[in-house]
Amino acid sequence: MSYNTFGREFRFTTWGESHGPALGVTVDGTPPGVALDEGYIQQFLDLRRPGTSKHTTQRREADQVRILSGIFEGRTTGTPIQLMIENTDQRSRDYGDIATSFRPGHADIAYHLKYGIRDYRGGGRSSARETAARVAAGGVAQAVLRHLLPDLAVTGYMVQMGALHLERARFDASAIPDNPFFLPDATAVQEWSDYLDAIRKDQNSVGAAIEVLIQGCPPGLGAPVYAKLDTDLAAAMMSINAVKGVEIGEGMGAAALTGTDNADEIRMGNDGPRFLSNHAGGILGGISTGQDIAVRFSVKPTSSITTPRRTINQQGQEIELITKGRHDPCVGIRAVPVAEAMAACVILDHLLMDRAQTGGLRGVIGPDS
Amino acid sequence: MSYNTFGREFRFTTWGESHGPALGVTVDGTPPGVALDEGYIQQFLDLRRPGTSKHTTQRREADQVRILSGIFEGRTTGTPIQLMIENTDQRSRDYGDIATSFRPGHADIAYHLKYGIRDYRGGGRSSARETAARVAAGGVAQAVLRHLLPDLAVTGYMVQMGALHLERARFDASAIPDNPFFLPDATAVQEWSDYLDAIRKDQNSVGAAIEVLIQGCPPGLGAPVYAKLDTDLAAAMMSINAVKGVEIGEGMGAAALTGTDNADEIRMGNDGPRFLSNHAGGILGGISTGQDIAVRFSVKPTSSITTPRRTINQQGQEIELITKGRHDPCVGIRAVPVAEAMAACVILDHLLMDRAQTGGLRGVIGPDS
Amino acid sequence: MSYNTFGREFRFTTWGESHGPALGVTVDGTPPGVALDEGYIQQFLDLRRPGTSKHTTQRREADQVRILSGIFEGRTTGTPIQLMIENTDQRSRDYGDIATSFRPGHADIAYHLKYGIRDYRGGGRSSARETAARVAAGGVAQAVLRHLLPDLAVTGYMVQMGALHLERARFDASAIPDNPFFLPDATAVQEWSDYLDAIRKDQNSVGAAIEVLIQGCPPGLGAPVYAKLDTDLAAAMMSINAVKGVEIGEGMGAAALTGTDNADEIRMGNDGPRFLSNHAGGILGGISTGQDIAVRFSVKPTSSITTPRRTINQQGQEIELITKGRHDPCVGIRAVPVAEAMAACVILDHLLMDRAQTGGLRGVIGPDS
Amino acid sequence: MSYNTFGREFRFTTWGESHGPALGVTVDGTPPGVALDEGYIQQFLDLRRPGTSKHTTQRREADQVRILSGIFEGRTTGTPIQLMIENTDQRSRDYGDIATSFRPGHADIAYHLKYGIRDYRGGGRSSARETAARVAAGGVAQAVLRHLLPDLAVTGYMVQMGALHLERARFDASAIPDNPFFLPDATAVQEWSDYLDAIRKDQNSVGAAIEVLIQGCPPGLGAPVYAKLDTDLAAAMMSINAVKGVEIGEGMGAAALTGTDNADEIRMGNDGPRFLSNHAGGILGGISTGQDIAVRFSVKPTSSITTPRRTINQQGQEIELITKGRHDPCVGIRAVPVAEAMAACVILDHLLMDRAQTGGLRGVIGPDS
Repeated sequence: MSYNTFGREFRFTTWGESHGPALGVTVDGTPPGVALDEGYIQQFLDLRRPGTSKHTTQRREADQVRILSGIFEGRTTGTPIQLMIENTDQRSRDYGDIATSFRPGHADIAYHLKYGIRDYRGGGRSSARETAARVAAGGVAQAVLRHLLPDLAVTGYMVQMGALHLERARFDASAIPDNPFFLPDATAVQEWSDYLDAIRKDQNSVGAAIEVLIQGCPPGLGAPVYAKLDTDLAAAMMSINAVKGVEIGEGMGAAALTGTDNADEIRMGNDGPRFLSNHAGGILGGISTGQDIAVRFSVKPTSSITTPRRTINQQGQEIELITKGRHDPCVGIRAVPVAEAMAACVILDHLLMDRAQTGGLRGVIGPDS
Repeated sequence: MSYNTFGREFRFTTWGESHGPALGVTVDGTPPGVALDEGYIQQFLDLRRPGTSKHTTQRREADQVRILSGIFEGRTTGTPIQLMIENTDQRSRDYGDIATSFRPGHADIAYHLKYGIRDYRGGGRSSARETAARVAAGGVAQAVLRHLLPDLAVTGYMVQMGALHLERARFDASAIPDNPFFLPDATAVQEWSDYLDAIRKDQNSVGAAIEVLIQGCPPGLGAPVYAKLDTDLAAAMMSINAVKGVEIGEGMGAAALTGTDNADEIRMGNDGPRFLSNHAGGILGGISTGQDIAVRFSVKPTSSITTPRRTINQQGQEIELITKGRHDPCVGIRAVPVAEAMAACVILDHLLMDRAQTGGLRGVIGPDS
Repeated sequence: MSYNTFGREFRFTTWGESHGPALGVTVDGTPPGVALDEGYIQQFLDLRRPGTSKHTTQRREADQVRILSGIFEGRTTGTPIQLMIENTDQRSRDYGDIATSFRPGHADIAYHLKYGIRDYRGGGRSSARETAARVAAGGVAQAVLRHLLPDLAVTGYMVQMGALHLERARFDASAIPDNPFFLPDATAVQEWSDYLDAIRKDQNSVGAAIEVLIQGCPPGLGAPVYAKLDTDLAAAMMSINAVKGVEIGEGMGAAALTGTDNADEIRMGNDGPRFLSNHAGGILGGISTGQDIAVRFSVKPTSSITTPRRTINQQGQEIELITKGRHDPCVGIRAVPVAEAMAACVILDHLLMDRAQTGGLRGVIGPDS
Repeated sequence: MSYNTFGREFRFTTWGESHGPALGVTVDGTPPGVALDEGYIQQFLDLRRPGTSKHTTQRREADQVRILSGIFEGRTTGTPIQLMIENTDQRSRDYGDIATSFRPGHADIAYHLKYGIRDYRGGGRSSARETAARVAAGGVAQAVLRHLLPDLAVTGYMVQMGALHLERARFDASAIPDNPFFLPDATAVQEWSDYLDAIRKDQNSVGAAIEVLIQGCPPGLGAPVYAKLDTDLAAAMMSINAVKGVEIGEGMGAAALTGTDNADEIRMGNDGPRFLSNHAGGILGGISTGQDIAVRFSVKPTSSITTPRRTINQQGQEIELITKGRHDPCVGIRAVPVAEAMAACVILDHLLMDRAQTGGLRGVIGPDS
């Protein structure tokens, strides 16, 4: 089984290490005839590129994507699309000092225990750099969705960073692109900026919570019982580095509700069922209902910090470790475009899955049913 | 792609509807030579069987499992194991009145929209009755784990029901089997019982939160990047009916932590690394570290309640609906043995996955490494 | 990975042993709304049922199929279809004498070496009885194909039995159902019957070659590079018990051809390309062209014969073995309906695969292209 | 489902077109710690490299492989291995004249019908050039097998080219590397060379048959029922461009045998069962027995020939076509290293599959069993 592959019908396999010559993704299952070029994919990569603000790692990576296959005369041919991103700013020397020691909270000890060998340069395969390949795959998914579901919109944003929470009343989607936090509230940007500056100057890092809103998703996507739409969205988000929790709709809060509160009552709208609330987050029995789909997840603080921590090395000696190098004080920020990419891939995957089984037929609600 | 199949190496496919003649599960990938009989599997099924207390549906089902294949002279042969449970108490008439209407918060509208046809008897395939087949598969997994990982223990329990929360200080695992709530605190059982009685008498239902603790899991299980152990555990729990959120370790709370708080510092113990805390929930980079693995999830309130709710029917008429029938006031209760079963299947699946790739080798930490 | 599962979109998992209580198949991925009942599936099972002529095993099995799930009010719901066939005539005693010895040419030594345990009763899982489950799955596939591709016809027949070959000039499809050999030549039936009588009286068995003709298959089915239509057909046939070779179109004979001979020249017909020959067997580059698809395969002679053969037993002692019991003198005969079933499953699988990726679009050939 | 992926545990995905910037393969599931470098893989690529003799296409390709990921300090890390081969000699102009016409016997019409778009340059994805990526993946498999099964040997050779057949009595494996035909008979090389020269000068091409012999394969590999070792070998070979037939052991000839002929009798050898013949080709019930495994397949003649053939173009006009460019007069020759690569991948895949399920246990034959 290919553990570096995501998806069923729309399937991508990521490859590459943080400090190897290149990383990339092999995308398979794309419908033929879809317009796609490097520029379209690049715009998504630029959203997660490091070094774009003082709030992200100062590592300089152009993250220029190259299409090596699967596109002919500007359109997909239905054959595998290979997307390659060369690593330019590797600075391996930064990492020499942790070659044989284990960062608390970091994957390197787990990789060592499992494989008996690890590429310690920049975390190797466990580096968040792998998510660049996901974003590239997400760009392909977005191009296909634009073709097949033009009304679909996938929007990610931060709702929490450490002690700071988004004020729902102030939600303004138009603000998201204009600040380094993907924050849907222009009035709070300064406060978030000052807060993260203080964290960084304190040699520390902080966690975050991100929400992805999927609007315009048609009903009927999702496959019971083990490929439910919410199951796949949860797996997609949990597979992102440092994610520790995932919620759909009410999420963990559903445990506190009663059945009368939780029931999303239904009336008839002009074009089908109209729900009076959305505790379900747009998914019932694992299948989309046509309501907005809301997915939320948490990202733990960056484990690589410059405050000394007690740990051990490969020889089993107890040491104190400071992780030098250029790390994000809040990795959650750059998880936003990654989550959008994963959500787009899941929706497209299920759209193609549904085409296979039902051929896209839909149950009718109305007098003629 | 088979959407009713769970797992990679240890793979099961569930089949059957709530009110068909039978339901069951086809289990494939089991190692040969493992002792297994119907009695062993039955003990797990008895834990989720309905009608065992006033707090669960009064539907009477013996849930007797029959092994139809894969076992010879009391041991697994390595061929598919077919487990069948006949439905005895179907009482389809209870459901006639909702044949063409949609229960708010229930999957029936989603099934209708997707497939254009649904078995409305007892929710058909979307019924929680499908989880009986999961528990049977979990019994097979437990038998194999007992054989391969005798020190492993998977323990599920409730940590929340509506407004009531488990008091961590009072945690007592020995209490779990002795009360109808799988509650690890004997002193709180009466309070939980009174609370749920009131909910039921109020024609209502309530949500819950369950935790599964996996102890004795060896390090090295989990496959980056898209089959991480936490990813698969999250998918397993989210695939259970009515689950809306999943957490590993700190879960959603990780968003509020700083890097210094979150770092699980490491010292050397007698038999390897010793972690001073467990914010990670036993998993780093998607791979188990040898610490206890903690998974938490929420279950929404039962959507079938006898308080009238506004909804529509298949003809698009706006109606008010009361769901008669015999429903759990808190479906979360019976989700506990289901979650244990899913967790056992995930651990076994990853144990076999790891055997395939690494052959079980492990990285050494110590002077000889 | 589930090794008892066949197919991608239309996927079935067979279970059960020759002498267990029952065997069956779990069919998943079926489109919803397709008319299906037990009688429809039974007609296919009756074609391979044992004991229907003196030329097949005298084991008496009703092979009555029961639908346990996935059908509601006579139509598929899109949920898993469980088909069960109970074993009625088991006569395990016939097999006691070979419990610890290995039949030359039979799978029992391989099962023992691999699993260290085997259900020796009637060959257990390696028995050709498993193919009854395939035929049941094929019945489901035929029902869906009748719904989606009404012009498709899958026809299997024998082309060779030992020294006897079908005379192509005498090919008459209408004769196939009317003789125990699925032979498309009524004039040769007596000769084939006498030949096989002699083989049986001689305590011997004989091999066979079967051809499956797929007519009315639309162009565009088949997925390069590793799910080519011919690749999947070859795998489907090779997975049938005792099959040793598979050919598409010219088959092994293609090695002797030149490019000028082999090129299937093309002219324009009224409704698209018209090929002047069909050396390719209807498949180019792994994709159907719209021509008839021709698949041929060989079946080795039954290994269970009553002529003594030298072999060993589990203790490593050298012995002479006679296999009593009721065996087909030519297992190839009953492989015909099995091959039809597998071919139908492959075509349906690819039809659904193609719906997923291309949505069924087709390239145009003509002035408007 | 990823249709450009081959294998279960050892899984590779090929990508790239004949005349794109590059092609390659993503290899996943490799055990960690295996010594591997570019030089080792290159030696396998050099065996199928074009332009090495007058008997293969004169297209000049260095086929230099680059390892982009998955190797650290000369050993596999267990993460995906990306192997890239840049296309250097593309000469697209050669193909301009067939951009809108269809070569008889070639895949281009099937691709057009399926996808509605095709990369016509050199056949795009359907070009035999894709097999270079398979050979690179096979190099990885060979490195792992050398590590895990040092006694295994996979040897491919030609047994037929058009009218010429290998004389079995003259079989000499040592001759294979020393002639352009991979022919195990030095005395016949001149005759084969003259024969193919005549074919080429005649503006024609010719078919071939190749055999792959797998020696030293342990018993117990192969997974009933739908991942039999022979099923997977058949699929592997049939997936190679232009293959029309596959045989295991007696192959199609088994149809002519009787049970007494076909039974491979067994005696006890020093280290286990000793078979007195090998009609089965080393596989019983889909599982290896420890005997040599023999796989044979046919390759049809190159469809691109310079003799004019009748065909049509995209506009539906009837034309006569000559395929210029540089084509192999016998593509079968270069299929030999490709078949070796595929066979090595299948054996490794099954070795890892078996480790997962049985952990490598083996049934004992002898007094202690």
